[in-house]
Amino acid sequence: MSLLVIGTLAYDTIETAYARRENVLGGSAVYFALAAAKYAKPALVGVVGEDFEQEHLRLLHAQGIDTRGLEVQKGRTFRWSGRYEVDWNTRTTLETQLNVLETFDPKVPVEWRSARHVFLANAAPLVQLKALEQIERPQFVMADTMNLWIECARDDLRRLLRKVDAVVLNDEEARLLTGERNLIRAAGAVLGMGPKYVLLKKGEHGAFLMGADVHFSLPAYPVEQVIDPTGAGDTFAGGFMGFVAKSDRCDPPTLRRAMLWGTVTASFCVQGFGPDALVARTHDELASRYDDLLQIVSP
Amino acid sequence: MSLLVIGTLAYDTIETAYARRENVLGGSAVYFALAAAKYAKPALVGVVGEDFEQEHLRLLHAQGIDTRGLEVQKGRTFRWSGRYEVDWNTRTTLETQLNVLETFDPKVPVEWRSARHVFLANAAPLVQLKALEQIERPQFVMADTMNLWIECARDDLRRLLRKVDAVVLNDEEARLLTGERNLIRAAGAVLGMGPKYVLLKKGEHGAFLMGADVHFSLPAYPVEQVIDPTGAGDTFAGGFMGFVAKSDRCDPPTLRRAMLWGTVTASFCVQGFGPDALVARTHDELASRYDDLLQIVSP
Repeated sequence: MSLLVIGTLAYDTIETAYARRENVLGGSAVYFALAAAKYAKPALVGVVGEDFEQEHLRLLHAQGIDTRGLEVQKGRTFRWSGRYEVDWNTRTTLETQLNVLETFDPKVPVEWRSARHVFLANAAPLVQLKALEQIERPQFVMADTMNLWIECARDDLRRLLRKVDAVVLNDEEARLLTGERNLIRAAGAVLGMGPKYVLLKKGEHGAFLMGADVHFSLPAYPVEQVIDPTGAGDTFAGGFMGFVAKSDRCDPPTLRRAMLWGTVTASFCVQGFGPDALVARTHDELASRYDDLLQIVSP
Repeated sequence: MSLLVIGTLAYDTIETAYARRENVLGGSAVYFALAAAKYAKPALVGVVGEDFEQEHLRLLHAQGIDTRGLEVQKGRTFRWSGRYEVDWNTRTTLETQLNVLETFDPKVPVEWRSARHVFLANAAPLVQLKALEQIERPQFVMADTMNLWIECARDDLRRLLRKVDAVVLNDEEARLLTGERNLIRAAGAVLGMGPKYVLLKKGEHGAFLMGADVHFSLPAYPVEQVIDPTGAGDTFAGGFMGFVAKSDRCDPPTLRRAMLWGTVTASFCVQGFGPDALVARTHDELASRYDDLLQIVSP
């Protein structure tokens, strides 16, 4: 087992300017694992309620995801509901029900403690730290976070950042964490907090990777019609880490390619509701779009 | 003489969140020519008033720009005044004084009518058409435009688009011209109007080039501190066309490289007020940043 993700499983209710869907399978660990499963065999640590559908468990298995780290607790699965405006850039959270997530205490199964690649999906930094402590000697650890923790748990987050190899942030989070408006300066300031690499996501405007030994900037894959951007960031992280785990290397050339795979994987995700379009894609379809992207960005 | 630009010369008053400058040398043809002069010997057709400073004429000459196509008319030079908000993305025009531009009737000197490369900077499409008619058999013609003409002179603009090889538009203009929100679709729709290539500028988010035989997307050069974005678009076009003229080719590999040179040239422009920082740069400094950019974008 080479790739471990600790994060949330959820049922989302999603409104776009064009449609509305209820109880869509979601959560950071779900999107991440479904994306990473295109390249590696991810193992998932998380918690769900008694209402979690067997059909969804089967879906995760069918995609090659190991769910032995999934706890089923009394109560309901975490629920999130949100709305996207017509330009896709504004997302409003309509409702969050933590449910079983409220008492989430991640337990990494003994046989997974030797994981080489770890993704700490968005969660309270203390929960992320608690998960990380259980891993023996990971080769490459990446963490995600969100505005809430930057504002309310900054010290814990700073502690976490000293212990991870990479952090993935969107533009808004990078600005909030560092107080720098300019994203290049913000990325530099994040590196000063400890991680070797920062992956800075800019949504439809692409992403860049910065570290002492690499600076790589990449536009998004040109998708003509977005259906639902939910999970795109975790899917990007999943494609990235999936490729890193598959390669079992984390040198700059591998990380550059991982950025492309992350971008390609996320581009499929936004073309359907929830993870539907992502799940439906074969590795050949991903590889073909990877070749397209390579063409589009090669100088 | 291989590169001809027809456009405006201006005195700008520029306000940013940090500073204010009056009577800064500006205008689309000025920025374009100063940028293109890093790579080729541009010749400029335009009009100024009697108030146009000798010092600015000397500056253009010193940069290797041929100004024999510059008319001096009674009255004052075109003036523009605008303000940028703190995020640089919002620009408000405070005042426009057309002055001598009101009756601008471009006359291309006879010896320049064989120009191989032509840039029709932003102007009324009828003026652009009138200029273009005077060129015998150009190899590569690129046109710029703006919202005003898309709204008020759409038929003339559509006529122009059938006669040029390339058009350069920003995201907002592309959306307004085509009615497509998605920029990839918008670019496709612009190609349907006649030009072989569209250069779509997204400001700090880079630019892409699309044509039947090429699709190339490029992030902006990562500038840590913007001083004044005025003229960045024309500077991008100038770097692009300057390199095309210097190469005397317009095949896709040349156009991809031209996109990089345009990006690099524009990145210097925004680092000073008006064209100051652009003027001050040597070809070696541009080449060094080109190498940086190549590193940053190479997969």
